[in-house]
Amino acid sequence: IEQKNISYHMSDLNFYEYIFKKIYLALVKKQYKNFYCGVWPLPHALTSSVEQYPLNPQTFAFDYGKHSATQQGCSLLDAAFRRYFSLIFPDYTAGRWTEEFLKCQISTDHNDCENYPNDDSSERYNLSVSAGQASLNAATVWGILRGLETFSQLVYQDDLGSYFVNETFIEDFPRFQFRGVLLDTSRHYLPVHAILKTLDAMSYSKFNVFHWHIVDDPSFPYQSRSFPELSKKGAFHPATHVYTQSDVRRVISYARMRGIRVLPEFDSPGHTGSWGKGQSDLLTPCYKGGAPSGTFEVTSVFPDSYIHLGGDEVDFSCWRSNPHVRAFMQKMGFGGDFPKLEAFYIENIVNITSANNKTSIVWQDVFDYHERVGAHQDFTVLVEVWKHGCYLCKVRQVTKAGLRVILASPWYLDLPGPTHNWARYYTVWPLAFPGSEKQKRLVIGGEVCMWGEYVDATNLFPKLWPRASAAAERLWSDEKQTSSVEKAFPRLEDFRCKLLRRGIQAGPLNVGHCKHEYQGV
Amino acid sequence: IEQKNISYHMSDLNFYEYIFKKIYLALVKKQYKNFYCGVWPLPHALTSSVEQYPLNPQTFAFDYGKHSATQQGCSLLDAAFRRYFSLIFPDYTAGRWTEEFLKCQISTDHNDCENYPNDDSSERYNLSVSAGQASLNAATVWGILRGLETFSQLVYQDDLGSYFVNETFIEDFPRFQFRGVLLDTSRHYLPVHAILKTLDAMSYSKFNVFHWHIVDDPSFPYQSRSFPELSKKGAFHPATHVYTQSDVRRVISYARMRGIRVLPEFDSPGHTGSWGKGQSDLLTPCYKGGAPSGTFEVTSVFPDSYIHLGGDEVDFSCWRSNPHVRAFMQKMGFGGDFPKLEAFYIENIVNITSANNKTSIVWQDVFDYHERVGAHQDFTVLVEVWKHGCYLCKVRQVTKAGLRVILASPWYLDLPGPTHNWARYYTVWPLAFPGSEKQKRLVIGGEVCMWGEYVDATNLFPKLWPRASAAAERLWSDEKQTSSVEKAFPRLEDFRCKLLRRGIQAGPLNVGHCKHEYQGV
Repeated sequence: IEQKNISYHMSDLNFYEYIFKKIYLALVKKQYKNFYCGVWPLPHALTSSVEQYPLNPQTFAFDYGKHSATQQGCSLLDAAFRRYFSLIFPDYTAGRWTEEFLKCQISTDHNDCENYPNDDSSERYNLSVSAGQASLNAATVWGILRGLETFSQLVYQDDLGSYFVNETFIEDFPRFQFRGVLLDTSRHYLPVHAILKTLDAMSYSKFNVFHWHIVDDPSFPYQSRSFPELSKKGAFHPATHVYTQSDVRRVISYARMRGIRVLPEFDSPGHTGSWGKGQSDLLTPCYKGGAPSGTFEVTSVFPDSYIHLGGDEVDFSCWRSNPHVRAFMQKMGFGGDFPKLEAFYIENIVNITSANNKTSIVWQDVFDYHERVGAHQDFTVLVEVWKHGCYLCKVRQVTKAGLRVILASPWYLDLPGPTHNWARYYTVWPLAFPGSEKQKRLVIGGEVCMWGEYVDATNLFPKLWPRASAAAERLWSDEKQTSSVEKAFPRLEDFRCKLLRRGIQAGPLNVGHCKHEYQGV
Repeated sequence: IEQKNISYHMSDLNFYEYIFKKIYLALVKKQYKNFYCGVWPLPHALTSSVEQYPLNPQTFAFDYGKHSATQQGCSLLDAAFRRYFSLIFPDYTAGRWTEEFLKCQISTDHNDCENYPNDDSSERYNLSVSAGQASLNAATVWGILRGLETFSQLVYQDDLGSYFVNETFIEDFPRFQFRGVLLDTSRHYLPVHAILKTLDAMSYSKFNVFHWHIVDDPSFPYQSRSFPELSKKGAFHPATHVYTQSDVRRVISYARMRGIRVLPEFDSPGHTGSWGKGQSDLLTPCYKGGAPSGTFEVTSVFPDSYIHLGGDEVDFSCWRSNPHVRAFMQKMGFGGDFPKLEAFYIENIVNITSANNKTSIVWQDVFDYHERVGAHQDFTVLVEVWKHGCYLCKVRQVTKAGLRVILASPWYLDLPGPTHNWARYYTVWPLAFPGSEKQKRLVIGGEVCMWGEYVDATNLFPKLWPRASAAAERLWSDEKQTSSVEKAFPRLEDFRCKLLRRGIQAGPLNVGHCKHEYQGV
C-alpha cells in the first residue's frame, strides 16, 4: 500500500470520501499505529489527519518568523530550539531522508526573552503543522516553550527510524495558572542535578511552578548571605549538603529557561527546628529575631512575585510553656488564645512581604487560625489547601472568604501506594464544589507535593513520574475531554515511554514494555 | 589525645584497666564514631577492640596463605580480590599513609575454584584482624567470598580520608542454606546489567540464590535453543527484549563469581500464556507437547542442581472447557478431579527433572493439590510457601509431610508499602511453629520476591534495597542476636549508606543523610 493513496486533506474530501477513508484506514491501522500516540497533557483543541510529513534531522530547523517580536539572539528560545532538537531527534542512525522536509517557524507578539515567568504570564499558543511548514505562534516566549513541548511530542519514528509528524492544528492554553511541584530538600538533601532533572521532567508535563520547600526541622541547607550560621550549623553537612547562592541562582535560571517559576518556602513559625542551631536567638522565646531581614534576603534572591511563608502545624504547647511568650500575649491582650498570637506573627511577616511587593502563600492552617480569630479581613494571602478529608469543603470556605486557593490535598505523591495508582491523581475535580463563578475563578491551580521523609535522589523519580503527569493533565487540560481514566491510560503509557526515552526514570504503570527501556541502572 | 594512649588489647588488660578504658573511651567516643559501624548481616560471633590499624591502599594486598588449597590463578578469588580492593578503597584522594600497614591473607581447605556454588556449599569462614595481619580462613572459596564482604564492611575512613580497620575476631556461617532473591523478567523486561547489578547488591547482603522467574504469561524473553519460536513470538520484542544464550551464560558466570546460584523457573502448567504464541501445539489441549525436551534444555543450560517448576495458580476452568482434556481424564480414571490431573502433570515433570539429577522446587499450590489427592508419598520436591495468612501453619504442614520448605510469604517486596517498612521484613521468625527438631531442619531458607507487575529497571533498586537486606539478616544471622528492630536500625542505616557508596540505588529508611549521597541521577 502506497502511503500517498491513503493520505488525505480534510478540506479536499467530501463526506463519502471521508467515511470511505476512515474505514480503509481502520483496515490498515497497523501501519499507522504511531499516529495514534498522543500529546500529554491533552491540548484544548486538536485536529489532525493521517497526512504524514517526513522530518529530516539534517535539514530540520526552528527559526523565527519575519514579524516575530523575538528574533535570533533571544537566548531563552535559542536554547530551547537546541534542547528540543535533541529531544525530537534522539538518534540519526536510521531512516531514509527524503528531499521533502519540514521546518518549524515560531513567532511571538512580545519580546519577553529576558523576563522571568510570573503569575500573569500567558502560556497560550497555536501550532499548525501542514505541508512544508510548522508554525508556532504565541504572545509570549512562555507560550512558545509550551508549544515546542507539544510539537516534540507529535514527532514519531517509524520502524525504519525515519521521523514523521502528521498534519495537525492545535489551539492550547492552561486551564489553571498555577501548576506546581513541591520538593522537600530538608528531610533529605537533594543534589542540585536531581532538582535540575526534575525541572526538565516538569517542563515535559507543562508544570510551571517549582515550589522549593528548602528548609524545615531536620536541616537548613540554604546558605544564607545574611545568616551564614544557619546552614553552617543547621545543614546535614555544611559543605556537601547545602545550596550555595550560586546553586540557587543556577536553579532559578534553569527553571526560567523552561518557563518555570521558583517559589521558595521558608516555613515558620513551625518547622524551624534546624534554624535554631545556627541562630541561637531566633526561635522561641525571641521568635521575631531574624524574620524581617531574613525575609528581605529571600525576596531579593528569589525573583518570583510569590513567596511561601508556610505557617502549618504550629505546636502551641511550645509557646505555652514559655513565660516570656505568655507575658507578651498578656501585654497584647491575646489572653490564652494562641491562634491570635500565630495570626499576629503571620500578619507581621505578610506585611513585610507585601512591603517588598510580594504575594504571600500560606498553608491552610493560617486561614483556619485567622478564621477563628476573625482576622482575615484585609489579609491578602494565597491559601494552599493541603489537609485530607473534604478538601473541597475547605476550598469552598476559603474562596467564599474571597481568598485565592492552590489545591494540594489530593496530590501528596510521597504517601505510600503502588506506582500504578496514577488514576487516583487523575480523577480529581478541583472545581466540583458548590459556589459562584467568582469563587471558581479564585482556584488558581494545584500542586503535587513530594515530601521528603522517605524520599531522596534514589527514589524521587519513579515516585514522581509519571504520577505527577496525571495531575499535570488535570491542571492543564479541559476537564470534559479528560474525564476518562480508560482513555487516558494508553496515552499516559505512551508518554511514560517518552519520559524514559528522555532519560527520566519514570516508573511503570502496569505489565508491559517500552521500545527503549530505562538504561540508567 | 594520642591514639596509642587509649588503644588496648583485651588480653593485656586486667578488669580495672578494662573498666577505666571503657569510661575513658565513652568520653572520647566522638573521635571513634566510625568504629561503631557494624557489619550487615550480623556475624554469629564477633569480638572487636578499639585498637585501630591503618590500611594503606598503596601497599594493601590480599594474598594466599602458604598452605591454602587455592593459590594465585584461582580466577574466582583473584577477581574477588580486585573487586573488594575497589570497594574498600573507593578513593585515594586523602589520607596520610603510615609506614605501618596491614595485609589480608586468605586460606582455603579445598580447591573449588572452578565449581558452581550449590546446596551443599559451605559458606563458613573465620576472620581475624590483628596487628599487621588479617587472616581469612574457610573450607571453600564461597566462605572466602563471604569473609571478604565482611572484611570490606569493617574498613572505614576517618574525616581526613585515612582508612582504618579495628582489631576484630569473627566466626561466621549462615543460619539457612538457601537465601534467595526472585526477579520476574516476564512482566517487565529487565536489562541484563540490571540483573548483574542486583547480583552485586545480593552479594553485599550475603544472599546466595538468584531465583530467575524468567518467563510467564506476559512475555517469554528466554531465547531457547530447542524452541527459538518461543521468544521470537512470545517476547515483548524478539531482538531487544530477550535473554540470549550468551546473556544467560553471562548471568550464571557473574553469579558464580559472587557465590550465587542461579535457580531458573519455568512455571507451568499455569502462567504459560506467552509460551503458546511461539509454539502453537504447546498449550492445552496438547499440554505435554514441549515439556520433556524443554526440561532437558533447561537442565543443561542451568548448572544448579535445583530447578523451579512453578505449578502455582492453575486455572482449572480452562482445562474443564476442553473436551480432549476431559476425555483424557476419563481415560486416566481421574473423573472430574482436576487437582488429580495437575498432580499427574507435575509428577511427570518432576520425574523428568529427577532423571536429569535435579531437585524440583514447586510453589505450595502443588503440595496442596497433592495433599488433597493423597499423592505426595514418594514425591520428593522442595515446597516454596508463598501464600499470605498463616504461612507458618503451611510450613508446619509441609515439614510434617517430610518435605523441605523455602519461605517466601512474608517477603513479597513488590507489594505496595512505604520504603521504610523494612521492620516488617525483619521481624519474621521462620521457625516459630510447633514442630520437631527434624521439622525445623527441613526449613532450608527463605526468599525475597520482587514480582514485576509494577516493577522494572526504573524502580527495582529503591524497592529492593535495603528492604531485602532486612530479610538477608534474618536468613543469615543468629535470631537471638538480631531480634531487636531498634538495635538493627542504626546498623541498617549505616549499611544503606555503604550501598549508596557502592552505587546501589538503595532507598532511604527515614529522615537523614549519608556522607556520600546517591549520584546516579
